[in-house]
Amino acid sequence: MNFQYHGGFLVKIIGIVSEYNPFHNGHLYQVQKSIQDLNADGVVAVMSGNFVQRGFPAIFNKWIRAEMAIRGGVNLVIELPTYFATSSAEQFAKGAVELLDATGVVDHLSFGSEYDDLSTLKQIAELLVSPTEPFQEMLSSTLKLGLSFPSARAAAIHHALPELQSKLDMNQSNVILGVEYLKALLQLNSEIQPHLVKRQGNAYHDPSLNSPYVSATAIRRAYFEDAKLLSEGEWMPNAIREIMLNTTAHANRIEHFEDMILYAIRSKTTEGLSKIRDVNEGLENKILSAAIRAKDYKSLVDQIKSKRYTMTRINRILMGILLQIEDEQYAFSDHAYFRILAFDETGKRIIKKMKKSTDVPILTNINKFRNVIDSNPLLQLDIRATDIYHLTQRDKNGGLDYLKRPFDLDSFK
Amino acid sequence: MNFQYHGGFLVKIIGIVSEYNPFHNGHLYQVQKSIQDLNADGVVAVMSGNFVQRGFPAIFNKWIRAEMAIRGGVNLVIELPTYFATSSAEQFAKGAVELLDATGVVDHLSFGSEYDDLSTLKQIAELLVSPTEPFQEMLSSTLKLGLSFPSARAAAIHHALPELQSKLDMNQSNVILGVEYLKALLQLNSEIQPHLVKRQGNAYHDPSLNSPYVSATAIRRAYFEDAKLLSEGEWMPNAIREIMLNTTAHANRIEHFEDMILYAIRSKTTEGLSKIRDVNEGLENKILSAAIRAKDYKSLVDQIKSKRYTMTRINRILMGILLQIEDEQYAFSDHAYFRILAFDETGKRIIKKMKKSTDVPILTNINKFRNVIDSNPLLQLDIRATDIYHLTQRDKNGGLDYLKRPFDLDSFK
Repeated sequence: MNFQYHGGFLVKIIGIVSEYNPFHNGHLYQVQKSIQDLNADGVVAVMSGNFVQRGFPAIFNKWIRAEMAIRGGVNLVIELPTYFATSSAEQFAKGAVELLDATGVVDHLSFGSEYDDLSTLKQIAELLVSPTEPFQEMLSSTLKLGLSFPSARAAAIHHALPELQSKLDMNQSNVILGVEYLKALLQLNSEIQPHLVKRQGNAYHDPSLNSPYVSATAIRRAYFEDAKLLSEGEWMPNAIREIMLNTTAHANRIEHFEDMILYAIRSKTTEGLSKIRDVNEGLENKILSAAIRAKDYKSLVDQIKSKRYTMTRINRILMGILLQIEDEQYAFSDHAYFRILAFDETGKRIIKKMKKSTDVPILTNINKFRNVIDSNPLLQLDIRATDIYHLTQRDKNGGLDYLKRPFDLDSFK
Repeated sequence: MNFQYHGGFLVKIIGIVSEYNPFHNGHLYQVQKSIQDLNADGVVAVMSGNFVQRGFPAIFNKWIRAEMAIRGGVNLVIELPTYFATSSAEQFAKGAVELLDATGVVDHLSFGSEYDDLSTLKQIAELLVSPTEPFQEMLSSTLKLGLSFPSARAAAIHHALPELQSKLDMNQSNVILGVEYLKALLQLNSEIQPHLVKRQGNAYHDPSLNSPYVSATAIRRAYFEDAKLLSEGEWMPNAIREIMLNTTAHANRIEHFEDMILYAIRSKTTEGLSKIRDVNEGLENKILSAAIRAKDYKSLVDQIKSKRYTMTRINRILMGILLQIEDEQYAFSDHAYFRILAFDETGKRIIKKMKKSTDVPILTNINKFRNVIDSNPLLQLDIRATDIYHLTQRDKNGGLDYLKRPFDLDSFK
C-alpha cells in the first residue's frame, strides 16, 4: 500500500468495523477506496473474534482472519469483544464504535453500504436517537398490528421522513449497521467522522459466484462444497486465497456445534436458561422443549422460530447459550481493553500512538495482564469462546488466547 | 420361574440392588439362588438408570436393561435415582437401601460378593457405623502417612478386627458395596434381612470370556469389539442376548460424551464448576486447565488423576459435570418416588401391595405426576439424564421419560 506519510506522522487514521469471514475483494475495495478518498495514513479494523453477528462461528479463527486482513491492506486488527460481536446490530455497532473512539487515534469511521447517501442515513440516525412524535406513534401502532420490530421501525422511519426514497430498504443488513454506527457516533458525541463507501458488486447474501465481488456467504458456501472452487474464482487477493487453501484448520460452521448446543440446553433447567442473554418472556420453555424434540441445529431453530423471533435473533440467542453469555448489560467503556490480533509496520506505529492517547490496556500478550483477565467478564468470555470454538478442531486445542501472539507481517518478510 | 405362592399371597419379597449393564448369567444365578435360598415369592430390583456408578453411561438405556432384568426372572424393576446411581459406594448403597426399605414390602436384601461370610461383613459394617478407638487411631495415622482413604480404611479395619482373614480384600468393589448395604440397613434400623449369595465365576473386572460367568465389563468390551461375539458365548439367557443383538439402540460408552464433557467444562468458570458435586478444594482449577489441554476423555482423566483422586472418583465427578449434578446433599426420604421401569404379572401384584404399604408416589406414567416433577430435583435430574443420554443416539430423541411406559412382560405374551 502506498500511504502518504505526511512527513512521518500518522495524521489520518481510518477505523473499519468488520468480520472478514473471510476477507474478499469487496473488503479490499473498501480499504483501498477509503484510503484514497480520505488520503489516509493507516487503517484499523475492529474485527469479530471467533463468532460472528449472525450467531454463527466464523469460518476460521480470529488469528487466521486477522492475518487475512493485514494481507488485504489493513494495518492493525483489534478484536471486537465476543459480547458485542454476537449481539444485535445496535449493540454490535455500539461496542465497535466505542472501541474505535476509545483508541483516541481514529479520525474516520468508514463503512460500506448498498445505499450511498450518507446524509439520509444520518437523518435516520438522528431520528432514532431523538424520535419524533409521528415516528413514535407509527412505531407503536404498527407493533400493535403485529409487525415485527424491524418492519415496524422501517415503516415508522418512512412515515416520519416522507422524503426518503422508497428504494431505501431498511431491512438490508448493511443499511441497518450503517445507521447503527451513525447512532453510536451521535450518542457518544464522538469526533470520529463517518465515511461511506458504496458497496461493490453482489449483495450480502447473493449466492452468485460470477463476479469479482462475490459475497462472503457465497464464498463460504462454495468452500464448504469444494475448497477447490476457490482456485477457480478471483474472489480475494491471492495471498488470502493461499491462506484458505493451505490452512490445516478445519473450517467451522454452526452444524459442528449442534450437539454441544443441544447438550447445553438439555443440561439446563428453564431457570438456568433464563439467565442467558435475551432469553425471557417464556422463551426458555420454548427453547427447552424444542431442544428435546430437535435432532439437529436446523430443526431446533425451526421449532423456536415465530413471528416474534426472527431466525437471526434465535441464532444469536442459541450462540448466547453455547457461549454462556449471561443476561448482563455491559458497556465497552466499563470493561475496556484492546485485544491486538494482527499488525504490520504501520500498525505497530498506530499502537505506539494509541499508547499516548489512551489508558485502556493494550493486550498483545494476555499473560502479562492476568489482573485484567481476573476482573473482566468480557475478556473472560473471549477466552471461553476461543476454547469452545476449537473443540471442533482436530486437536481441540484450548488456551490459545494464552499461547498465540498477534500476527506480525514483518516477521514474514 | 416357579414361585411358591404361599396360598396366593406375596409373603416373602427379595430386594436386589443392580445395574444390569448388561444382565448376564451371574445376575441370573443371583436371582435364582436367592429365591431358592429364601423360598421367596418375588424379586424387586432397584436398578441404576442411564448412568452407572463407575461414572459412565450404561451400555443401553434403562428401559432396555429393565426388560432384560424381567426376562432374567426379576419381577419388578424400580429406577435408582441418578443422583444415587452416580454417587460414591456409600451414597449409592444408602439411596438404594432406603428405597427398598420405603417400599414397605421387601423382606430380604440379597447381594452378591466374592467373600461369603456374612457375619464378618456385618462386623465390619458395625465397626464403620460405630468406630472403635483402635480403628479411628489407625485410620487417622495411615491417612497422615498419605494412604488413600480406601486403603487407610482397609488397614484400619484389619487392625481393629485382627481376627479377619487376611484374604478379605476390602478393595474389591462387591465387598465394599456389601459392607455399605449392611451399614445402610443398620443406620436405617431396617427390618430388611441381608442375604449373601456367593458370586460365581469371574471377578468384576475379569476380562476372560471363557466361562459361563463372564463379567459385565468383559461382555461390554466384547460387544464393542464385535457384536457377533455375543452369539458365540453363552454369557446370558437367550432372550436377553436377542435383545442385545436386535436392538436399534446405539450402544453407549463414555467416549461418545467426551466432546460434551469438554464443552461443559470449557463453558464454565471455576466458580460454576465448584457448584458441582464433589468439586472442591481447588479441584475446579485442575479440571478446567485439564479440559483446556485435553483432546479426549482419557487425556482429560489422566491430567486430573492424582494420589488423592482415584480414577473412578474422577469419572464420577466428570459425570456430575455432564449431568449438572449440583453440590447438594439429598436423602431419598426427602424426595422419595418409585419410578417403575418394568414388571411382569408378579411385579404388578408387588406394586399393588406397595400401594397399601407406602405413601411414596409410584410413578408408572410421570405425566400424571407433574406436581411431583416440579418439586423434585432428583426426578428432574433423572429426566435430564435421559435427555442427555440419548444425544448419542441416531434420533437424539429427548423427552423419553414422558413417552415411555414401563416394560410389561404380559403385553408380549
